[in-house]
Amino acid sequence: MFNQLGVIGCGLMGGSFALALKRAGLVKRVIGYSKSPSTTEKAKKLGVIDDTAESALLAVSGSDIVLMSVPVSASEATFRAIRHLVEPGVLFMDVGSTKRDVVDAARRVLKDRVGSFVPAHPIAGKEVSGVAHADASLYAGRQVIITPLPQTDPDLVQKATDVWSAIGSQVLRMTPENHDAAFAAVSHLPHMLAFAFFSSVAKQPAGRDFLSLAGPGFRDFTRIAASDPEMWRDVLMANREEILKQSMRFRHTLDAMEHVMKSGNVEALEDLIRNASEARANWQMGATKPGSGR
Amino acid sequence: MFNQLGVIGCGLMGGSFALALKRAGLVKRVIGYSKSPSTTEKAKKLGVIDDTAESALLAVSGSDIVLMSVPVSASEATFRAIRHLVEPGVLFMDVGSTKRDVVDAARRVLKDRVGSFVPAHPIAGKEVSGVAHADASLYAGRQVIITPLPQTDPDLVQKATDVWSAIGSQVLRMTPENHDAAFAAVSHLPHMLAFAFFSSVAKQPAGRDFLSLAGPGFRDFTRIAASDPEMWRDVLMANREEILKQSMRFRHTLDAMEHVMKSGNVEALEDLIRNASEARANWQMGATKPGSGR
Repeated sequence: MFNQLGVIGCGLMGGSFALALKRAGLVKRVIGYSKSPSTTEKAKKLGVIDDTAESALLAVSGSDIVLMSVPVSASEATFRAIRHLVEPGVLFMDVGSTKRDVVDAARRVLKDRVGSFVPAHPIAGKEVSGVAHADASLYAGRQVIITPLPQTDPDLVQKATDVWSAIGSQVLRMTPENHDAAFAAVSHLPHMLAFAFFSSVAKQPAGRDFLSLAGPGFRDFTRIAASDPEMWRDVLMANREEILKQSMRFRHTLDAMEHVMKSGNVEALEDLIRNASEARANWQMGATKPGSGR
Repeated sequence: MFNQLGVIGCGLMGGSFALALKRAGLVKRVIGYSKSPSTTEKAKKLGVIDDTAESALLAVSGSDIVLMSVPVSASEATFRAIRHLVEPGVLFMDVGSTKRDVVDAARRVLKDRVGSFVPAHPIAGKEVSGVAHADASLYAGRQVIITPLPQTDPDLVQKATDVWSAIGSQVLRMTPENHDAAFAAVSHLPHMLAFAFFSSVAKQPAGRDFLSLAGPGFRDFTRIAASDPEMWRDVLMANREEILKQSMRFRHTLDAMEHVMKSGNVEALEDLIRNASEARANWQMGATKPGSGR
């Protein structure tokens, strides 16, 4: 049980965390700060936070748990803003989709206080953003990756594990490097492909007519193309090395499919499709748990 | 109201059409034929068809409406098998995802009887195949494209429009060429990308671990990668010219994204993402209706 949750960045992710902790009775009071005062006000009106803070630092003051839910490019500035109140025993977490860059910023700015920071990435989200979409159930049944450093306080790692578990998430531990390599493959590249694909259809001369004909397969394939531009700009930039590696692999597979189509090798084409189709049919979200953190 | 529906190919699409017509009280009796006798038996046991036919020709005999729901590469052979019973006044339709190849086969084989054939493509489906997944509601609220030829009997075009409308579909008319160009963009290419992407992740050394970490965005993006290999082999081959054109466009957009990532042009990257994101957020399935056939 926490006395006060400080939320820095009252958007979809931060707001949903606040609602989930409240619903689970895990926190007495939530104080929130957002860059835009109107966002903070909205969060208060919606009952997501109990009080507004005038600055990130004031959201930390008096809190025993702090969630930073800002675009990853704002991590360093946020650490700078709060570093004087980063004290032992207080749990600091983020929700960034990339971890190496956030961990580097934490090391640079927090220095010997970095042990209070437990880097976290909940595998949850919506294609809509903003506190109005905050949802107490967003993290239920979802995986949360934490990437502690050698210096991270083990008690805080345990607290982090407990709080995510208490709101229904399954906690896994990884290194920041393995995290970024894995999510380049299963999250960042698919987002990049969805953005590129949707644009490529929408901007062609007959794009408007084509889009009016698209069905449920297209709808699901492109859902993530509606994701938040600022957030994804940061993710694609922060993890571009791994993403470009994955893109290269993808292009090789696409080349192979086009090659068999062009050469009329129907059997090889069917084999390629069958491999994908069977593997996807056998895949289930969150089915196995490598390196569980519990 | 029809006396007898003949279904050639008792799979997901044919079976769902039979169930929908029965539920709507549009047909007295359904007779079905499939290449594999066990499929036909299963369709009968499930109540999808009332009687089994020993051949495609026998499924046509006595029917006043016939639905061919076979892989598009089997269209020509199917037309050959039934051509002696293709008679004026009987409505023949297919459900193929490509139309130029099917129309060409119909012209070649049916010759002066081609007027009985109303080429159709319902924009509906599931990532699972087989009569066990047949569903009377599959076509409700979905678009159906019909691509009549100059020789097509206008009365049959009207009948086709009426029967799809009666089971809840919205009928649009297009030329086979426009159909194939549009669906290369909004259906065939996304399937190809989903197959290639899933394969590319699954086959890398850490693929298994990566897949265990994937979340809801990945799940929706790859849903169509589980689609039927035989059907999609045919679609990708039949419409490869248009698909390869679309793939080229997609690659150019992907190139542009990678270029701005590599050069660190954060603003340009955000612009590219924002264009896609806003366009996708404003898109709604079946929202506008170019050239409605009603």
